[in-house]
Amino acid sequence: MGQKKREPGELIIIGGHEDKAGDQEILKLVAERVDKGMLLVATLASSVAMEQWQEYRRVFQKLGVKKVEHLDVETRADAADDARAELVKQARLIFFTGGDQLRITSSFGGSRLCGIMRERHAEGVPIAGTSAGASVMSETMLVSGPSDDSHRVGDALRMAPGLGLTREFVVDQHFAQRGRLSRLVGAVAQNPRLLGIGIDENTAIVSREGEGFEVLGQGAVYVINGQCITFTNLSESEPDATISVHGIRLDVLSRGDRFDVEKRLAIHP
Amino acid sequence: MGQKKREPGELIIIGGHEDKAGDQEILKLVAERVDKGMLLVATLASSVAMEQWQEYRRVFQKLGVKKVEHLDVETRADAADDARAELVKQARLIFFTGGDQLRITSSFGGSRLCGIMRERHAEGVPIAGTSAGASVMSETMLVSGPSDDSHRVGDALRMAPGLGLTREFVVDQHFAQRGRLSRLVGAVAQNPRLLGIGIDENTAIVSREGEGFEVLGQGAVYVINGQCITFTNLSESEPDATISVHGIRLDVLSRGDRFDVEKRLAIHP
Repeated sequence: MGQKKREPGELIIIGGHEDKAGDQEILKLVAERVDKGMLLVATLASSVAMEQWQEYRRVFQKLGVKKVEHLDVETRADAADDARAELVKQARLIFFTGGDQLRITSSFGGSRLCGIMRERHAEGVPIAGTSAGASVMSETMLVSGPSDDSHRVGDALRMAPGLGLTREFVVDQHFAQRGRLSRLVGAVAQNPRLLGIGIDENTAIVSREGEGFEVLGQGAVYVINGQCITFTNLSESEPDATISVHGIRLDVLSRGDRFDVEKRLAIHP
Repeated sequence: MGQKKREPGELIIIGGHEDKAGDQEILKLVAERVDKGMLLVATLASSVAMEQWQEYRRVFQKLGVKKVEHLDVETRADAADDARAELVKQARLIFFTGGDQLRITSSFGGSRLCGIMRERHAEGVPIAGTSAGASVMSETMLVSGPSDDSHRVGDALRMAPGLGLTREFVVDQHFAQRGRLSRLVGAVAQNPRLLGIGIDENTAIVSREGEGFEVLGQGAVYVINGQCITFTNLSESEPDATISVHGIRLDVLSRGDRFDVEKRLAIHP
């Protein structure tokens, strides 16, 4: 809108179950980024959208956010609605809640509303997301499914197009809590161009495309780098075969650590 | 006993919940190794020793093992008992069941009986172990504790001396099922001399000291190689800090894959 073209906004990607009652390290950061603007809580992933909206509204208001609005999109028609477009245009930050990532993309992906959100993000508006709202940020996203035991080649292939807000990595959440290592390794082995980022609960990364990311919160962030993979059975195996991937590089990061995505290098400050 | 000195026996290290009703791939291999000899089921780890003994006896008899005997050691006095010593001397293979690895080492470690078992193993007798019976094989073993969320430096330090049947690696079991990646990473980061081997349920490695190991069973085996770690916060952090470890090499192996421990290299046959 005549605005000077800026860098894309930050992505604040949260592994689910972020603290809402204690020190609220992650949501506090979200609230700070909103500053005096409007925070738009997008409950598209959720089957209990009203409950989630009410909870996040209460939490963010307590954290001092003056303007909190609600975006819900149940149908493709909703995503073409002018009032909703206006909300996205006015938001200072958009926060995607958890649920099912396919609910977000099937109702919202490719819509006019989604286009406006992508434009806003390209102009500098930060997008935050937790759980399903975290997974959905990548070009190709992991889809919910069995995890504790997901060593099958077929499981690793359960991916779908995401919102494409980052082209650098594929995200998995609730990482240690749900034992998702092999699923993320499988996703990376399919195409080692993308880094795999596994984020624990109550843990987040703040990422800026091209500049890497920083870790905050209580848990760990796992970076799966597949550039030096020497062997994988992914393409040759039956869907129920167990995954075999040799030569992964793994970095385990915690609060304050940074990751240089271009150099694929973990940095302790 | 005048016997010609032989190579140490194999270690058959099982990640817990090995199949006992289907194709029984892992227990079949154990039964084959016993051949016409005596299989000694050691229920030292268990608080329900009699139940475990009865179950394994039934399963191994069905698999064609003619002689199955029971070794239980509740107290240090039991471990000095002559009848038990005779059982260990006569066994063609000793199989450690699951439970609590500290039960094994606190009653049995350093006893005369344990010394006899170590001699027998050094002379070629294979030792198998599942779950706690798997963890206990290493020089220093991981001790049961919280896992799904074990990112604390303090948790990673929960180790105790094991039976010392291998000096090559530290073992964790129920690996994907209980989300134990960060715990094993922490153990390796404390001293990268040892490889970390995470074994899924119904999955096993067959290892011969100095010659590497092979994978069998349904799940995956994760090899954590810390030789190239560039940074860890383990020594500088408070016990409740989250672990940070940069520059791990990770190999995910499945059935038929081999690992050359000396070269630290995964091999697909």
